[in-house]
Amino acid sequence: VTIADKVTVQMGKRTYDIIIGSAVLESAGVYISAATSANHFVIITDNNIPESYISTIKCALNKARIDVVKIAAGESSKSFSCFNSLLDSIFETLPDRNTTLIALGGGVVGDIVGFAASVILRGIDFIQIPTTLLSQVDSSVGGKTGINNKFGKNLIGSFYQPKLVLIDIDTLKTLPKREFLAGYAEVVKYGLINDKAFFNWLDDNLDDILSMQPAALKKIITTSCKSKAEIVAQDEKESGVRALLNLGHTFAHALEHQAGYDGSLVHGEAVSIGMVMAFCLSNRLGFCSDKDIDVVKHHLVRSGLPIYPSEIKKIWDVDLLLEAMKQDKKVSDGMLVFILVKSIGDAFIQKNVAANVVRDTILQNIINS
Amino acid sequence: VTIADKVTVQMGKRTYDIIIGSAVLESAGVYISAATSANHFVIITDNNIPESYISTIKCALNKARIDVVKIAAGESSKSFSCFNSLLDSIFETLPDRNTTLIALGGGVVGDIVGFAASVILRGIDFIQIPTTLLSQVDSSVGGKTGINNKFGKNLIGSFYQPKLVLIDIDTLKTLPKREFLAGYAEVVKYGLINDKAFFNWLDDNLDDILSMQPAALKKIITTSCKSKAEIVAQDEKESGVRALLNLGHTFAHALEHQAGYDGSLVHGEAVSIGMVMAFCLSNRLGFCSDKDIDVVKHHLVRSGLPIYPSEIKKIWDVDLLLEAMKQDKKVSDGMLVFILVKSIGDAFIQKNVAANVVRDTILQNIINS
Repeated sequence: VTIADKVTVQMGKRTYDIIIGSAVLESAGVYISAATSANHFVIITDNNIPESYISTIKCALNKARIDVVKIAAGESSKSFSCFNSLLDSIFETLPDRNTTLIALGGGVVGDIVGFAASVILRGIDFIQIPTTLLSQVDSSVGGKTGINNKFGKNLIGSFYQPKLVLIDIDTLKTLPKREFLAGYAEVVKYGLINDKAFFNWLDDNLDDILSMQPAALKKIITTSCKSKAEIVAQDEKESGVRALLNLGHTFAHALEHQAGYDGSLVHGEAVSIGMVMAFCLSNRLGFCSDKDIDVVKHHLVRSGLPIYPSEIKKIWDVDLLLEAMKQDKKVSDGMLVFILVKSIGDAFIQKNVAANVVRDTILQNIINS
Repeated sequence: VTIADKVTVQMGKRTYDIIIGSAVLESAGVYISAATSANHFVIITDNNIPESYISTIKCALNKARIDVVKIAAGESSKSFSCFNSLLDSIFETLPDRNTTLIALGGGVVGDIVGFAASVILRGIDFIQIPTTLLSQVDSSVGGKTGINNKFGKNLIGSFYQPKLVLIDIDTLKTLPKREFLAGYAEVVKYGLINDKAFFNWLDDNLDDILSMQPAALKKIITTSCKSKAEIVAQDEKESGVRALLNLGHTFAHALEHQAGYDGSLVHGEAVSIGMVMAFCLSNRLGFCSDKDIDVVKHHLVRSGLPIYPSEIKKIWDVDLLLEAMKQDKKVSDGMLVFILVKSIGDAFIQKNVAANVVRDTILQNIINS
């Protein structure tokens, strides 16, 4: 057994730790007692999560009162009505202000449970136990919670920090390859934003990562969490530097929207395609070299991630993609804001990007393949 | 025209002002432009609010894009489904992060709009324009927002501070007498908690207050807001001293619950009856004198407020009242917590009060009349 890593997310009074390692679930009791004095826990998980994870956590928390609430796996659980049902299920356990929610699962579970914790009795504690690579490297840091409505994704939610995040890399063993890769796209993103050395390390160690060597997994998760934690500590409410984390995401959201959330394009794949578009847009605007685009594309292809929309489906409507970008909540006062790059590891925020250059970039990437 | 008062609520980065005076609606534009750079406002109000208030505010904000959303007056708007409808109506106005919500109305409007602002796009600004005495002296300070579900009142919500509160005492002129008195019960509460001089002032100036003299109205609202602001600044999340504001409220909530929220007993009336019970309980436990009980009762009777449950209806079930108190969310780890008084203006928090003494106190007050 290796020793677990710890990343501390500095948020003033709401500072919390992320524990990253093997067999962390088995030691959950020790970490949780150190972080909270709660004696009532509600574990919220989805029906894809192995029963053994739940029983391991229950066992680790043996002295406490524990309730378990299951939600359906998938984005549909982020509707307003499912959220209401979840709140009812939690209230049936008779929570008080010392109750702590435990989010056990992927990003959807984390988003909903964090939001539930933020609004129950005007805010109770919650702990995240993310079980997918995407949720481990992305939603475990930053306190973004939310649900969807007919106007868009994550339009209703809050900024609310967990008391503790437990990441057990062993949970990745049972994760489908495609979901692992989707999370890996976000890992690559941290290298591309502001850490060229990390990107180079990823490029040198890709085989170990794809063959799930524990040391490599711990390294990529710890580095990603640290990177995000540093950015979020500077800008909790996303008024400035935090926007860098959206590299490739404005494109990605538009692609996901047009693909229709039917499973044909998962978020991480869209981010992979979107990051390539962000590099191409930067190149078109004179900010980054052809060579950087090639290096990024080569790495993503080696990982097994898509880099062009045509790998997902043949026909895309460029004008609808552009329209969707204008609706994105990252738009401020109607201006198109993009995260661009000067080179690998040197991203920056560019406001007021001309729509026609964006259009040309999308078109080039749709045609290319 | 008199000069408006200003109370600053110290909340660190979320510090805000409360403006209290005559004709404040007419000057809303000046105050609002000083507090926010928003150029899109959504005024949310209920169907009891005079159209003239809305048009006055629209006129005062003449350069901005303004939408108006109306909800049904009354507690029923605090359901989860009405809240969802309200969010939809707000999203139809295409809000962005610079949109500011304006809550124009009583406590219900303030509670819902504050909660909506806290969850739309993970938090946008809101301004309160409370038009009832109760909302002016109570919910305008403290940032408590919330809605109801089948398990109880205000069980879902957040702590979220407004950017600005505008209190126009002229709006009280059209308020029904009964609603004015319900708000007045909370005014008396501030005297009873920690300000005997204010209680004495109220006793000396009750005629001016009841005849709605502007100077008297401004004085009671300003003093109440200051008093609450001082307490809340010390304890935003209600982990300590803020509990003093619940004087009489544990009794009141149980009475309201049993009366069934059918309009036979409004919140402020329940608070009036509950404060008398709190004095009687304190007396029974040896903390306050018979004389103090009499002085408080005499003042409340002079105001026109009820002091006994029998003034509302004849039959009350003491055991169900006790049961309801145990369900109250102010209960922590199952212990009964009460706000008691040593004398007028000297309240304190008492944990672990014996249920049988509470029962005897309720019984005595039910039988008395």
